[in-house]
Amino acid sequence: MKPVPVKQSRTIRTSLVLPPDTNHHGTIFGGKVMAYIDEVAAIASMRHSRSPVVTASIDSVDFLSPVKEGDIINVEAFVTWTGRTSMEVYVKVMSEKGPGGEKQLTATSFVTMVAIDKDGRPIPVPPVLPETEEEKELNRTAVERQRQRKQRKAK
Amino acid sequence: MKPVPVKQSRTIRTSLVLPPDTNHHGTIFGGKVMAYIDEVAAIASMRHSRSPVVTASIDSVDFLSPVKEGDIINVEAFVTWTGRTSMEVYVKVMSEKGPGGEKQLTATSFVTMVAIDKDGRPIPVPPVLPETEEEKELNRTAVERQRQRKQRKAK
Amino acid sequence: MKPVPVKQSRTIRTSLVLPPDTNHHGTIFGGKVMAYIDEVAAIASMRHSRSPVVTASIDSVDFLSPVKEGDIINVEAFVTWTGRTSMEVYVKVMSEKGPGGEKQLTATSFVTMVAIDKDGRPIPVPPVLPETEEEKELNRTAVERQRQRKQRKAK
Amino acid sequence: MKPVPVKQSRTIRTSLVLPPDTNHHGTIFGGKVMAYIDEVAAIASMRHSRSPVVTASIDSVDFLSPVKEGDIINVEAFVTWTGRTSMEVYVKVMSEKGPGGEKQLTATSFVTMVAIDKDGRPIPVPPVLPETEEEKELNRTAVERQRQRKQRKAK
Amino acid sequence: MKPVPVKQSRTIRTSLVLPPDTNHHGTIFGGKVMAYIDEVAAIASMRHSRSPVVTASIDSVDFLSPVKEGDIINVEAFVTWTGRTSMEVYVKVMSEKGPGGEKQLTATSFVTMVAIDKDGRPIPVPPVLPETEEEKELNRTAVERQRQRKQRKAK
Amino acid sequence: MKPVPVKQSRTIRTSLVLPPDTNHHGTIFGGKVMAYIDEVAAIASMRHSRSPVVTASIDSVDFLSPVKEGDIINVEAFVTWTGRTSMEVYVKVMSEKGPGGEKQLTATSFVTMVAIDKDGRPIPVPPVLPETEEEKELNRTAVERQRQRKQRKAK
Ligand SMILES: CC(C)(COP(=O)(O)OP(=O)(O)OC[C@H]1O[C@@H](n2cnc3c(N)ncnc32)[C@H](O)[C@@H]1OP(=O)(O)O)[C@@H](O)C(=O)NCCC(=O)NCCS
Ligand SMILES: CC(C)(COP(=O)(O)OP(=O)(O)OC[C@H]1O[C@@H](n2cnc3c(N)ncnc32)[C@H](O)[C@@H]1OP(=O)(O)O)[C@@H](O)C(=O)NCCC(=O)NCCS
Ligand SMILES: CC(C)(COP(=O)(O)OP(=O)(O)OC[C@H]1O[C@@H](n2cnc3c(N)ncnc32)[C@H](O)[C@@H]1OP(=O)(O)O)[C@@H](O)C(=O)NCCC(=O)NCCS
Ligand SMILES: CC(C)(COP(=O)(O)OP(=O)(O)OC[C@H]1O[C@@H](n2cnc3c(N)ncnc32)[C@H](O)[C@@H]1OP(=O)(O)O)[C@@H](O)C(=O)NCCC(=O)NCCS
Repeated sequence: MKPVPVKQSRTIRTSLVLPPDTNHHGTIFGGKVMAYIDEVAAIASMRHSRSPVVTASIDSVDFLSPVKEGDIINVEAFVTWTGRTSMEVYVKVMSEKGPGGEKQLTATSFVTMVAIDKDGRPIPVPPVLPETEEEKELNRTAVERQRQRKQRKAK
Repeated sequence: MKPVPVKQSRTIRTSLVLPPDTNHHGTIFGGKVMAYIDEVAAIASMRHSRSPVVTASIDSVDFLSPVKEGDIINVEAFVTWTGRTSMEVYVKVMSEKGPGGEKQLTATSFVTMVAIDKDGRPIPVPPVLPETEEEKELNRTAVERQRQRKQRKAK
Repeated sequence: MKPVPVKQSRTIRTSLVLPPDTNHHGTIFGGKVMAYIDEVAAIASMRHSRSPVVTASIDSVDFLSPVKEGDIINVEAFVTWTGRTSMEVYVKVMSEKGPGGEKQLTATSFVTMVAIDKDGRPIPVPPVLPETEEEKELNRTAVERQRQRKQRKAK
Repeated sequence: MKPVPVKQSRTIRTSLVLPPDTNHHGTIFGGKVMAYIDEVAAIASMRHSRSPVVTASIDSVDFLSPVKEGDIINVEAFVTWTGRTSMEVYVKVMSEKGPGGEKQLTATSFVTMVAIDKDGRPIPVPPVLPETEEEKELNRTAVERQRQRKQRKAK
Repeated sequence: MKPVPVKQSRTIRTSLVLPPDTNHHGTIFGGKVMAYIDEVAAIASMRHSRSPVVTASIDSVDFLSPVKEGDIINVEAFVTWTGRTSMEVYVKVMSEKGPGGEKQLTATSFVTMVAIDKDGRPIPVPPVLPETEEEKELNRTAVERQRQRKQRKAK
Repeated sequence: MKPVPVKQSRTIRTSLVLPPDTNHHGTIFGGKVMAYIDEVAAIASMRHSRSPVVTASIDSVDFLSPVKEGDIINVEAFVTWTGRTSMEVYVKVMSEKGPGGEKQLTATSFVTMVAIDKDGRPIPVPPVLPETEEEKELNRTAVERQRQRKQRKAK
């Protein structure tokens, strides 16, 4: 299969933080952020593999700063590395305080998606073609992260 | 106020079409597309004006092709023109059939947003600085569209 | 096909404006109003045509007064005119301030719905039988509105 | 306080049965029907009392026929009787099979709403003025139903 | 069929009361509580019968104390009695004020669920084996409640 | 502060997997599972600390088996360990295939919650009192997991 440039999988989802996403102090739930991360990672890996996908794992996430009702939340993802049937997706979550306020890093994460056929069985995916410096760096370091995931699951 | 380049307001929202968005033939509701158009236009105009906004009007929308459950829907918006307190936002909705399929134009629309203060009163917004050819063209033709909106409402 | 009286398609949807429908100033989203307009228009045209429908277009909408959390919103629709497979639906949105307060006009719109078969292909609909003065007036002026829609889309 | 005619509280909510309202056999959840009953009863009693309300009780509900995804569901309610601070609301739920199909009775229920002030304390409501035969009959039989509710709660 | 111990059907659902569940005074809707009651009763009866179920009826519910946004709501249910195809489920709703506050009884109810096959036809369910004192008492008194439901529906 | 027995924070949330939770192959989204994990962990830590909480981090999650529409999903959580202001919560997600089918492990995770005051500042929490063997084992191993989290965040 022909390598797919990273820019083909790059996906952006900007949205408003609304009352249903927040607790009664007006702060977004960690679980809501996780749901955004998973949705955007799914789209990025569908664009890379041109097939349906399932989430195999989500690496640990640290929530660095609170996001409030009325803030803008921006989630960006792209495929950094592929195995035979799995894809590693890097996801970055930023927030903009109030309307037009300063930008803050909320969280980053790595999600592993697996391409599947109609019966839910893993199918091969094309390799990735990293082009920018950031893409190349994330691609290079992916092998070690994948090794740790296998070790972790084996426990 | 200093003119704001169009790229500052440019906003993208890519998402999956899920069961709650569709009728029981699996086709997205027109009203759901309108809700996406309004949300992305609101974010674009908040980024331009750095203030809260309300929707003053949505121009007519033609739905050019059906969007199905499992498709990817991509909504993109930017501010094209400003009055004293109002902003015209151009919104373009594309869909990608199934995972990784071909792209189709679903709809385009112009939304007029008004910047408001805490009591809901209109407040001035900075002018827009169009840079690309498309931005300049949409900015130039905005005056005539705004004239038609005024006429329409007067009826 | 036998003409169908307008009263057969007349549809009412009264509901409470709740937190998920509003921004963090407690004002309803324009997109939420559009979603209500589309849903009620769909039911009205399903009742007229006794078949599934899709939204072909929504004419421009001006939002005349804000609707707040805790208000009652009342959406009313009926079929005003039919082509061969399309139906024009008139929709009127009223709000009642707080519990039992005064009524205000929020917006009006014309939605065009098309009757479809299982494969999404347009199918013929029965003509409409306008009875009251308002129904006759809206039916008479529909031809000109339809002409403008055709022109608009051709651009 | 001046008696309020029943027609002032009469409230209608027609909507489409959508995927999120149904189980995976496509049948609406009983709990979803209960949620509609409560919402429409709340609006009817807000229109009667012009004040905020809370649900004090819902009488037993028998679900007489299943309602499916794609059906139209029609909920109608009005105030039948008032005590000092409480209002009895009659609610009737009908469904229309598929687009334009035959009508079926799904359920009926009596909901008791209590008008409250800002601190959640019961406040007096105006009496009701029944006009039609159905309204008068339901008003006449309400006293016995209210007696049974008091007995039931005392247990 | 072998009797099924009550503990097999016992189901617990603890959740946070969030903005979409509440009116604009921050109090949970009665209809939302009913929806929780129905969902938990459905799971309890699915666990008892190992088959799909539909809600045949919900007995009257008195709402004894308000539940607020930010409170914890705890819904617990188990099958108390079975007929040939129907199961009576007892449901108890408790709330915990604020984080870690005192517990209050919100409501109790009896829901009747009927086991069905793929075509929605009632199918036989195994009998129940009550073990604790509370289970035995509720089982013993169920016959009289079921008699009243039949009488009620016949009217 | 007096140690709090683990059983005080133990929280269970059993629910049905419904259409809005699943992709169009009927499989639950990984992000939806994460949202459940976060909500149940929040309740467990609120019950332990009797104060509001925010999610500081979620450790990696492996999704071991797919969960389908119509399945029952069971999420259980309790506080295993506390620092000064932080609490480690262990969460276990099980699913039951179809109605009454066999149980499968879906995922386990550790969530770190921090107790906060009204201004979002960390406040001290009482220590935990582990009683069962499982509780003691998880408490003993928590220190090493917390050390790794600090190291991870420092990078
Ligand atoms: C993900 C899943 C398909 C993997 O199935 P499996 O039987 O382990 O299949 P394989 O061993 O062939 O693994 C397939 C790929 O997934 C990778 N993988 C499996 N588990 C993984 C994990 N926890 N983290 C990262 N990668 C993982 C394997 O390394 C392999 O990658 P490769 O083909 O690139 O070498 C399966 O575990 C599953 O269906 N899980 C549930 C997925 C789901 O529904 N998620 C949503 C919420 S429950
Ligand atoms: C309803 C509520 C305000 C009643 O409070 P109370 O202290 O019992 O007040 P009162 O005894 O003065 O009763 C007020 C009225 O409610 C009526 N009432 C109380 N409980 C009732 C019940 N279960 N069914 C019918 N009517 C009831 C009383 O008869 C009285 O009517 P009247 O003024 O017309 O004679 C109170 O029980 C409450 O707040 N419940 C929770 C309501 C709620 O939040 N519901 C949503 C889901 S939890
Ligand atoms: C519930 C339903 C299947 C019963 O069908 P039916 O034709 O009355 O069937 P039967 O007369 O054989 O009754 C089946 C069982 O249900 C019981 N039942 C029927 N209506 C009942 C009611 N209102 N309350 C309690 N039990 C009831 C019968 O007593 C019988 O119990 P048993 O087998 O233990 O003796 C049918 O009324 C139905 O489909 N209703 C809609 C259910 C639904 O979709 N609910 C969701 C919201 S609309
Ligand atoms: C969590 C938060 C309050 C910590 O603030 P802080 O300035 O780092 O505060 P401190 O350094 O005093 O840390 C407080 C405690 O949190 C722990 N902590 C901080 N970050 C952590 C992480 N990523 N994982 C685990 N524990 C963490 C610290 O170890 C400390 O624990 P201790 O008191 O038991 O020793 C802050 O990062 C925050 O507000 N994040 C956003 C939370 C949020 O809104 N989440 C939802 C989605 S964005």
